[in-house]
Amino acid sequence: MNIKIVIAYDGTGLFGWQTSSDGPTVEEKLQAVLEQIYQHPMVLQAASRTDRGVHAAEQVVNYRTDKELDLKRLLISLNQLLPKMIRVLSIENAQENFHPTLDAKGKIYHYHVCQGAVQSPFRRHFSWHIHLPLDIKLMREGAKCFLGTHDFASFTNVQEPRPKETVRTLKRLDMIEEGVFLRFEIEGDNFLYKMVRNLVGTLVYLGQGKVTLHDIPSALAKRDRTLAGITAPGHGLTLHKVLYY
Amino acid sequence: MNIKIVIAYDGTGLFGWQTSSDGPTVEEKLQAVLEQIYQHPMVLQAASRTDRGVHAAEQVVNYRTDKELDLKRLLISLNQLLPKMIRVLSIENAQENFHPTLDAKGKIYHYHVCQGAVQSPFRRHFSWHIHLPLDIKLMREGAKCFLGTHDFASFTNVQEPRPKETVRTLKRLDMIEEGVFLRFEIEGDNFLYKMVRNLVGTLVYLGQGKVTLHDIPSALAKRDRTLAGITAPGHGLTLHKVLYY
Repeated sequence: MNIKIVIAYDGTGLFGWQTSSDGPTVEEKLQAVLEQIYQHPMVLQAASRTDRGVHAAEQVVNYRTDKELDLKRLLISLNQLLPKMIRVLSIENAQENFHPTLDAKGKIYHYHVCQGAVQSPFRRHFSWHIHLPLDIKLMREGAKCFLGTHDFASFTNVQEPRPKETVRTLKRLDMIEEGVFLRFEIEGDNFLYKMVRNLVGTLVYLGQGKVTLHDIPSALAKRDRTLAGITAPGHGLTLHKVLYY
Repeated sequence: MNIKIVIAYDGTGLFGWQTSSDGPTVEEKLQAVLEQIYQHPMVLQAASRTDRGVHAAEQVVNYRTDKELDLKRLLISLNQLLPKMIRVLSIENAQENFHPTLDAKGKIYHYHVCQGAVQSPFRRHFSWHIHLPLDIKLMREGAKCFLGTHDFASFTNVQEPRPKETVRTLKRLDMIEEGVFLRFEIEGDNFLYKMVRNLVGTLVYLGQGKVTLHDIPSALAKRDRTLAGITAPGHGLTLHKVLYY
């Protein structure tokens, strides 16, 4: 059987999705609990390999097993055994060929910025604190440059081996203000490594006057990561939803 | 000089406001940093002695000093030196006789409940998780019994020496639903020890069918703590605002 589970996690203190020698990860925690219950080795695949400190509201994971368990009871058991920063929201039997990454038609990420002289202590693990006011109107202009299909080579990580294909389609990049919080809602077909955080970092640089509106199409055109803004910190990012249509 | 400061804190991992031998407290952290800056012993008074795990959006504190410091720079220094779960929102010179507790004309507390089979991992330190649905309509009826002036002796802690005067006036007890979250907004002139958490605990018991609507005026009349519901856990509670008019 191919089992699809949807999980949410507070990534604070975790070293991202994928098992790492640096510290505890979501994959490792979930795998250990599943192996404890099923009593056989587990291979997990996740729709998004979230980085250290990144959160997920709806991460989609699958695993294969021959043991048929009652899925309602399994959900309760998993939530009893998992640490409270990781919660299983749903479990279902998926089609035999379902693959959480390859079948994903799109993903929505949210990124939160906390504007203001003093950071909210309540959301410090979920938002990037920017002391001085941002020019949101200009940032909205900048965001338009990213919409549609572009070669986003300038907005992936310089240190990683660059993937062969760096063309991606961005469907939506909205900025929603709620009190001192600014939420970026970013939807695309697929994202390059650290692309969301690089887009947000660049827009924040624009809003701070550290780059100009002209620099954005120019950076896109030159396919050079060093031309774009900084990478926004991981703890402001949440994988909001994986879309399968 | 009598200095008034407004602070916010995430009470997770802290042992409440008041210095305790059990573990770190807000008072202890703030006092240490103020003494480091002012280089003289500090006596702090807070409007509300929040318990272990309880949060504050706007706690009001005062201290006295003869040293005149630039308050804008002091605010920056304090936020640099304090741990990030405690933030200073404002500092000002108060009138010589200002007292944060005695001058308070009222207080507003918020209490969050997370309803649903699975608790949100993002707000697990800020809400009480109740697995089964609550009868909110009935709870709103119950809340009406508490409004106005009553002897709340049944709703203070049994273990504490009971204060001489247990009559208090509750101005407002609203329940606001936001998705899976239920927020109690509770305003009164003054509150007995653990009164807010006992009111919430009793209303949750009512919403779960563990007590009846009739039990509430009955518990108020009998002035006996053992008749009321349980004490809601501290981590769902936030001191929202202290009112001085």
